[in-house]
Amino acid sequence: MPTDVPTDRRVGSHRLLQVLGAWQRSGASYSALADGLRAAVQSGAVPLHTRLPSERELATTLGVSRTTTTAAYDVLREEGFLVSRRGSGTVTTLPPGAVDRITTHTVLTGPDDAVDLSAAAPSAPPELHGAYLAALDMLPAHLTGNGYSPVGLPVLRQAIADWYTARGTPTGPDQVLVTHGAQQAIHLLVESSAGPGDRVVVEQPTYPHALDAVRAAGARPVPVPAGPDGLDVDLFESTVRQVGPRLTYLIPDHRNPTGTSLSAEERARVRAVARRHRTVIVGDEALTELTLDGDAPASFAGDGSDSGLVVAIGSASKSFWGGLRIGWVRAHPDVVARLALRRRHMDVGTALLEQLVTAQLFARREELLARRRLELRTRRDLLVDLLAAQLPAWRTTPPPGGLALWVDLGAPVSSALVALASHHGVRLAPGPAFGVDAGLERYLRLPFSETPQALRRGVDGLAAAWAGLAGTVPTTSPDRDEAMAAYV
Amino acid sequence: MPTDVPTDRRVGSHRLLQVLGAWQRSGASYSALADGLRAAVQSGAVPLHTRLPSERELATTLGVSRTTTTAAYDVLREEGFLVSRRGSGTVTTLPPGAVDRITTHTVLTGPDDAVDLSAAAPSAPPELHGAYLAALDMLPAHLTGNGYSPVGLPVLRQAIADWYTARGTPTGPDQVLVTHGAQQAIHLLVESSAGPGDRVVVEQPTYPHALDAVRAAGARPVPVPAGPDGLDVDLFESTVRQVGPRLTYLIPDHRNPTGTSLSAEERARVRAVARRHRTVIVGDEALTELTLDGDAPASFAGDGSDSGLVVAIGSASKSFWGGLRIGWVRAHPDVVARLALRRRHMDVGTALLEQLVTAQLFARREELLARRRLELRTRRDLLVDLLAAQLPAWRTTPPPGGLALWVDLGAPVSSALVALASHHGVRLAPGPAFGVDAGLERYLRLPFSETPQALRRGVDGLAAAWAGLAGTVPTTSPDRDEAMAAYV
Repeated sequence: MPTDVPTDRRVGSHRLLQVLGAWQRSGASYSALADGLRAAVQSGAVPLHTRLPSERELATTLGVSRTTTTAAYDVLREEGFLVSRRGSGTVTTLPPGAVDRITTHTVLTGPDDAVDLSAAAPSAPPELHGAYLAALDMLPAHLTGNGYSPVGLPVLRQAIADWYTARGTPTGPDQVLVTHGAQQAIHLLVESSAGPGDRVVVEQPTYPHALDAVRAAGARPVPVPAGPDGLDVDLFESTVRQVGPRLTYLIPDHRNPTGTSLSAEERARVRAVARRHRTVIVGDEALTELTLDGDAPASFAGDGSDSGLVVAIGSASKSFWGGLRIGWVRAHPDVVARLALRRRHMDVGTALLEQLVTAQLFARREELLARRRLELRTRRDLLVDLLAAQLPAWRTTPPPGGLALWVDLGAPVSSALVALASHHGVRLAPGPAFGVDAGLERYLRLPFSETPQALRRGVDGLAAAWAGLAGTVPTTSPDRDEAMAAYV
Repeated sequence: MPTDVPTDRRVGSHRLLQVLGAWQRSGASYSALADGLRAAVQSGAVPLHTRLPSERELATTLGVSRTTTTAAYDVLREEGFLVSRRGSGTVTTLPPGAVDRITTHTVLTGPDDAVDLSAAAPSAPPELHGAYLAALDMLPAHLTGNGYSPVGLPVLRQAIADWYTARGTPTGPDQVLVTHGAQQAIHLLVESSAGPGDRVVVEQPTYPHALDAVRAAGARPVPVPAGPDGLDVDLFESTVRQVGPRLTYLIPDHRNPTGTSLSAEERARVRAVARRHRTVIVGDEALTELTLDGDAPASFAGDGSDSGLVVAIGSASKSFWGGLRIGWVRAHPDVVARLALRRRHMDVGTALLEQLVTAQLFARREELLARRRLELRTRRDLLVDLLAAQLPAWRTTPPPGGLALWVDLGAPVSSALVALASHHGVRLAPGPAFGVDAGLERYLRLPFSETPQALRRGVDGLAAAWAGLAGTVPTTSPDRDEAMAAYV
């Protein structure tokens, strides 16, 4: 298959051991190993056209028999994920048709009707069509130019600035840069600040594609724990003091994946850390509009006076729709200008009509979001009920906002569970995807942004996969009563 | 002004000397130096919040009096491009309101009605509105998902694949990745192949933002001359052999900025270089549809059999409109998959409606492009006539395609001319922007994609600026007759 793609990369068996995580489970080892290797190719953790270690070498490193590694490689050769040729060893590839099944996380396998719980993102609101029509009416004024929009259209930058101002952070349009989704904002901030060997402080667990951006820049993500109790700001400050990061990336609101938030007091303390250490702290507010219970959090940017160091980014993807690809940066005008001039090496600007549409959606925000929050509350409560009924050993605290539950499985089996779940028609991201190192195998993120039908099918599949792990983990948790209490 | 933005960067006086290029001209030195420094801040060549050398140090390096550097700094402090504070020296910043005036190349100054000849890109075609309406009718089928499109919609990938097939390069949709403009395709290919210290071979002159992408990755662009005679393929091959690049970036058709193209035979030889040296060569076909005279060039990808090494990229920006932000990569399916999985750290996918619109425009391509070519021919010929009449010392060969003339000024004064032209209401990119090193000061790119009115005003302004350079360059070229002949 890969006749002319260069295959000069290799992955060592120790690196592969890391990538595989907790792959072992009860049942045939070769099958579990094949699942783990396949997932590594599908997710890009082992890039395509990379040469794998020999069966013998991998067997030694993993402490399994050579029969196991040979059988696992055979399965993947059969499926089209590996190809072996004399002289170039065993190389990763993809089966025909795989390109059509690439998502933001992985290359899909299995049935087309599998439930996809690997992304936590909502579908489009009914207001979208009208917003597009209105935007199209506004477009002619912009057609005489070349269409390049490196800073963003004034109408959208004003709408975003007004939104910050209304939340207590006085903001002018010259403090807003419109980007190609919040992901570009993260990429731009990271790669303009940090290069090979530099440190970037992140929460752990955190948003996987932010980690991707740090790693792609060659920088080292330095994790600060932010588990069910949130971020320990003292520990955060001492980490900043110790490592001298080029940048810090935090999710202040409804953290992806844990659902916790910084309190108003913690926000103020984080901003003080930025000032004290003259370090840039980026707060990702993509989920800030999705408060499901209680009051909306205060803006991360505070009174806006630290805008050279305290940078907020936002997104239309979670409040409105991911298909728009609109995000933004709120910062000091000079930071906005610096990023706007720098982005030309990556995209030269954001699509014009999508900006006009987003400005329209901002105008109808309250009505749209009220309905979205109501729907998400219902789905969150349904997912909690389904888990309590079918997977009572799992433990989770229903979050007051965001799009997902963060579930404690009670044992380090997340990767093995996710591999088995794919055989039961459910796709998920394993816990380690949200962390810097090989930890988080006890955890699983379960988005509740999908339809009730998908949530029901998803939990059915997970329950079947969990039963399949029997022998790998205790089928009932030793502290089941306590676990049940967490669902209340 | 910049109260809380970190200012830990510095630019040395020798680096500043490089950045300034040929800044000197007749008249007051301080004014010419101020123009050069301002342009460096505006273009981002010296990033914002960077500390400049002291007046005394800069004077020594430039070989001018301290009065000159002090007066130049004073001008820029007055204008708001520099700020000086005890303890932190003189730091680059921007005047209030500058964020609204950022283009893909620079921060604009001067009057709003200045003629912008700094970008070579057309305005939107009248077919665009209908294409948006038709796309909106197709959108509902895509609204139930989260909208992320890391590979691209099948309908657009099929349209692009068919376009290659029709041009003699059999292509399936699994060989097409839709990107956020061709610039993202360049960025993605460069940063996934080359890191700090790696070499990337480029033509010189070439597209400036491709050089930006190489430099942003920390890689070193290695130039191969591609002047009025095009690319010397033997020299290209020996360069590839010598430096072992991670990637080569070429513009096979209607090169930006020179307008020359690889012949069919040269294309075949370039592909053979890729095969022989097992090296990836990227051909940027953004301008390929803009053949104005003669036959359209053969596809760079040839018969498509080397798609792991010979990678083509394309763009909707020049054929249709830059405001769409749609580009693509045509390569081996495994290369497509590798890039699609990697891009999640930069943007997770391309906007959906813009893809549907581009598919619509592909369907109406012939009619739209026939009109566009006719218009560009007229404008090219007008610009050639205007130059012959008003700037007869300049020399250019009208190109058979593309969007710009590449003008030989006869003396190394491009940066100084561009600085003066800005005072005469004309914005341009100086010759050195298209090269790796400080050369190309003899050259100027003049886009003919603007309206006839803008071209007339642009040449008027250039003629005035050229007159203002009197004393810096000979007002008549020693070989004026020969220069005139070039306009025929």
